[in-house]
Amino acid sequence: MKSFNYKLNDAVNKKNSRLCVGLDISPEAFNDSNLKNLKEHTFNVIDATREFAVAYKPNFAFFERWGAAGFAWLEETVSYIGDQHIKIADAKRGDIGNTAKQYAESIFNYFDFDCVTINPYMGTDSIEPFLNYKGKGVFILCRTSNPSAKDFQDKLIKNNPLYLEVVRFADSLNKLDNVGLVVGATGSEELRKIRTLSPKIPLLIPGIGSQGGDLANSIEVSNKTGVGIVNISRGISFVGDMKRDEIYNAAKNYYEQIKEVMSK
Amino acid sequence: MKSFNYKLNDAVNKKNSRLCVGLDISPEAFNDSNLKNLKEHTFNVIDATREFAVAYKPNFAFFERWGAAGFAWLEETVSYIGDQHIKIADAKRGDIGNTAKQYAESIFNYFDFDCVTINPYMGTDSIEPFLNYKGKGVFILCRTSNPSAKDFQDKLIKNNPLYLEVVRFADSLNKLDNVGLVVGATGSEELRKIRTLSPKIPLLIPGIGSQGGDLANSIEVSNKTGVGIVNISRGISFVGDMKRDEIYNAAKNYYEQIKEVMSK
Repeated sequence: MKSFNYKLNDAVNKKNSRLCVGLDISPEAFNDSNLKNLKEHTFNVIDATREFAVAYKPNFAFFERWGAAGFAWLEETVSYIGDQHIKIADAKRGDIGNTAKQYAESIFNYFDFDCVTINPYMGTDSIEPFLNYKGKGVFILCRTSNPSAKDFQDKLIKNNPLYLEVVRFADSLNKLDNVGLVVGATGSEELRKIRTLSPKIPLLIPGIGSQGGDLANSIEVSNKTGVGIVNISRGISFVGDMKRDEIYNAAKNYYEQIKEVMSK
Repeated sequence: MKSFNYKLNDAVNKKNSRLCVGLDISPEAFNDSNLKNLKEHTFNVIDATREFAVAYKPNFAFFERWGAAGFAWLEETVSYIGDQHIKIADAKRGDIGNTAKQYAESIFNYFDFDCVTINPYMGTDSIEPFLNYKGKGVFILCRTSNPSAKDFQDKLIKNNPLYLEVVRFADSLNKLDNVGLVVGATGSEELRKIRTLSPKIPLLIPGIGSQGGDLANSIEVSNKTGVGIVNISRGISFVGDMKRDEIYNAAKNYYEQIKEVMSK
């Protein structure tokens, strides 16, 4: 079976897309707290963007908030996405080995995601249980897109920021070609350093749109020597009147911006 | 309304107990994959230990692995525990502010937990959304109980290990008396340093039992100047024949060992 990173590269090339659509469907942004309507909107977003997205990234928080009913909605969402797109579980897991095994079982076997976002704070044995699933992969949080990313990630360890230690760590775990990094678009200098240190590791890049990250720079820097996909959540799901046409056009617009950068 | 840390101290003193019972009910350890039986075992563990536990700590991974049905089981478990014990969500959350808000909503309002374990890697704005719920609290991962805790947590930043930076960080966030730390029993030297740096902050101490941490040392060091509660999961839930009497006796035994250390 092909490795996760191979499958990601292949999907990016075949679709000629580096657009990941984030599914963070909050009642506050949708201005409606009816779960049935939120679910319908999720499916609308997926249908309106299938042509342009290479990946979908449901964010567990937005489902978990509704308890068992929210997890049923997540199950339906994964199944609705189907097998023509990469399915990223944005769950930011990180726990001791014994517990990590259960999370891996949940995300890869129960929910059938292709990959998952992981927090590195607890080290190697919190990540290893995710690495032995054939064809599945992880994206380890490296330099995140939020303002407080700097609190710990920029701390210097022998003159090197912690986030660059995480790059080395991820490279060392990438023996089966199934490890990537989460790097926010909001730190363009950091993104450049990460890409220089690890030219080929896949990058998942959030922080564009509401968070203010630079799309063109993110695509250019991350794709020079490897593959980088950018995630857009609110900028697609909650654009304008939130109707299908507007969502379609927003996704198309991001898709074309990305293509334009890539063609330079 | 009383702060979370006040409520924790009060519960510890009233029950004269520092025992947290971890609910990590895995089919592998229980040797049975029937969800109905796992649920029944969870309730048995709770009933057999009510007398000795000051807190219960359901571990989200073990519920999430069963999808929506597992989350229904988690909902029932929280409700079954009731209001006479502190309910700790072992969820190890950590995400950007917008997402953290949803997790806080999930854990405090939807599930009605009293507190939650949180990962510090993403910094202040990933934690703040949890700090404004009256009477609720967080335990921030500091020095964890797993062997790979050292990978990042022991890295030196200007001669100080990262985990001690996390202690200072937690203290700075503890304005409403609702922040504690997770410190593994497996690192006795680290536990001592943490307690010295922050004499009063509540400590949640996993790693005793299967992971090999030292119960007496953990209780003694953590409770000299503040409150530390120790978590036991597998050593209670899956002890001996896993019947009610054996579980009761295991909890009683831990409870008495703790009392003995405290009486010295």
